[in-house]
Amino acid sequence: MRFPFLTRSDRPTASPYTRRMDLTPQRVNDLVATAFPATTAMGFACVELGDGSAVARLTCDPSEARPGGIVPGPTVFGLADLALWFAVFTKIGFEPMAVTSDMTIHFLRPAMADSLLARCNLTKVGKRLAHGEIRVWEEDGDPERLIAFASGAYALPDAKGDAST
Amino acid sequence: MRFPFLTRSDRPTASPYTRRMDLTPQRVNDLVATAFPATTAMGFACVELGDGSAVARLTCDPSEARPGGIVPGPTVFGLADLALWFAVFTKIGFEPMAVTSDMTIHFLRPAMADSLLARCNLTKVGKRLAHGEIRVWEEDGDPERLIAFASGAYALPDAKGDAST
Amino acid sequence: MRFPFLTRSDRPTASPYTRRMDLTPQRVNDLVATAFPATTAMGFACVELGDGSAVARLTCDPSEARPGGIVPGPTVFGLADLALWFAVFTKIGFEPMAVTSDMTIHFLRPAMADSLLARCNLTKVGKRLAHGEIRVWEEDGDPERLIAFASGAYALPDAKGDAST
Amino acid sequence: MRFPFLTRSDRPTASPYTRRMDLTPQRVNDLVATAFPATTAMGFACVELGDGSAVARLTCDPSEARPGGIVPGPTVFGLADLALWFAVFTKIGFEPMAVTSDMTIHFLRPAMADSLLARCNLTKVGKRLAHGEIRVWEEDGDPERLIAFASGAYALPDAKGDAST
Repeated sequence: MRFPFLTRSDRPTASPYTRRMDLTPQRVNDLVATAFPATTAMGFACVELGDGSAVARLTCDPSEARPGGIVPGPTVFGLADLALWFAVFTKIGFEPMAVTSDMTIHFLRPAMADSLLARCNLTKVGKRLAHGEIRVWEEDGDPERLIAFASGAYALPDAKGDAST
Repeated sequence: MRFPFLTRSDRPTASPYTRRMDLTPQRVNDLVATAFPATTAMGFACVELGDGSAVARLTCDPSEARPGGIVPGPTVFGLADLALWFAVFTKIGFEPMAVTSDMTIHFLRPAMADSLLARCNLTKVGKRLAHGEIRVWEEDGDPERLIAFASGAYALPDAKGDAST
Repeated sequence: MRFPFLTRSDRPTASPYTRRMDLTPQRVNDLVATAFPATTAMGFACVELGDGSAVARLTCDPSEARPGGIVPGPTVFGLADLALWFAVFTKIGFEPMAVTSDMTIHFLRPAMADSLLARCNLTKVGKRLAHGEIRVWEEDGDPERLIAFASGAYALPDAKGDAST
Repeated sequence: MRFPFLTRSDRPTASPYTRRMDLTPQRVNDLVATAFPATTAMGFACVELGDGSAVARLTCDPSEARPGGIVPGPTVFGLADLALWFAVFTKIGFEPMAVTSDMTIHFLRPAMADSLLARCNLTKVGKRLAHGEIRVWEEDGDPERLIAFASGAYALPDAKGDAST
């Protein structure tokens, strides 16, 4: 799936990080594998990109599971965080310098699947922050039966590439 | 450091998980290493226990660092989550079935140290939930210069050992 | 709009608060006006009920507005909180004893309208907690242009009517 | 109590909102009463200011109480929000344009007192955001017996006075 980078009227058009590019899940995975090889090695991947949305997958590592085969909470958090990062890419291009500002997660049910999916829908892309909500479910299960619900914000780099808050 | 388990009048005294036991950081680390070996292997440890408080340490793994040597956000989240879990132990004993219900984290600065510390202070221990706040800082840095601030709740098992919410 | 109360298999059917009743927005408003007259007097109302969802309206009081006619943040929070409460009613009946356990809100834009709407969709109804996400927008504006995004949990009363956590 | 405005090296010193001024609780209350008369009328006041900390008081209005004399959750939220705002003043001066970016609150116990206090301690003051944690308790009760715990961030105006995120 391809999509053009979408210019937002409420963002500075000359910002160096609003690079127009043809992002696809494969291209994101290639970029992540190069810049963040540990993320790829941990089983995380981008599987879908929309306009302000993204789906990330975690292929679970049984050796890291909790007793009973439960996926650790921080790993679920990491998946939600990644889905938000991918969704931000669809608005500002691939941006390694975008960093999580805050995240709230509710763990709704234990996750015991071979793989999890997380869908992020951005709720706002502003000058400084992009905010989104993320739902996590088991890939072979009911997408309405949520493992976790998260929401949070990414700090966007300014014209100098500085995302510190 | 040793401390007696403290009975709280606002908890059911006959609950099977209020096991009186002499918890020490070493004993917690031994229990975690047995029940959750991946947690130990990832460099997490308990270094201090108080009455409703705990300090957890993360010895950072350079191979998992982000570019620039930055500790990944989900790893910082995991450290905060662990400190809350340890603090809960000081009120109800070692309880593998206590699960995170919700957590909010603000990432305040990038972490670039060899090791991080997280201190949790419980703010309430109720019948169903234990709530606490957690501060994360670099071990060789200023404890007031926070890497992250988190707060959240653990769901406590009921008399039947059920912590599902 | 009328809808039957929906029994959930994952809740104790004999619980005294799972009263089957025909809830409508008007009936909720009548019950709220009787039990919580201040809420009604402040301009809050229920305008829609679904199966696990609800819409609440705030008719803004200009005398309470901030300079520039901006609706105060805590008032927006109150509207989101109310929408979650109403959505909980659609699962367990009118329940004055259900209390907010936690809520996270991101204020995305200033609200300057005569009235605001908040839609809550429940993401889980468990034994102890009901969790939902809430979107707030200006009634005469674009529903996608969010004023605030919130998520949180209500503590549900147990068989003895006790919702303390 | 008087305190000098404290210059922070990590903030732009020429920013128009870093006005050096002698802030006292009385002066803050006077400024709030002028700019936000509804806030004063609702019983909110500043009672203490420190370096990066503040205490706010709510004199509860019985006519707005929930059944049983319980202070409404949104009112408690408003008190926490105000304490954070006051604490921000101690770093950047009185700043009506500083707006809440996000807030998470856990309601830990019902509040049934004539007045509540909320203490905010800032955990970071950055270029864009000030983050703090807030504890709420009953004025005539034990300060350790918390009614609510909150944390959140204020968006700070930039050099042009723009705090939109």
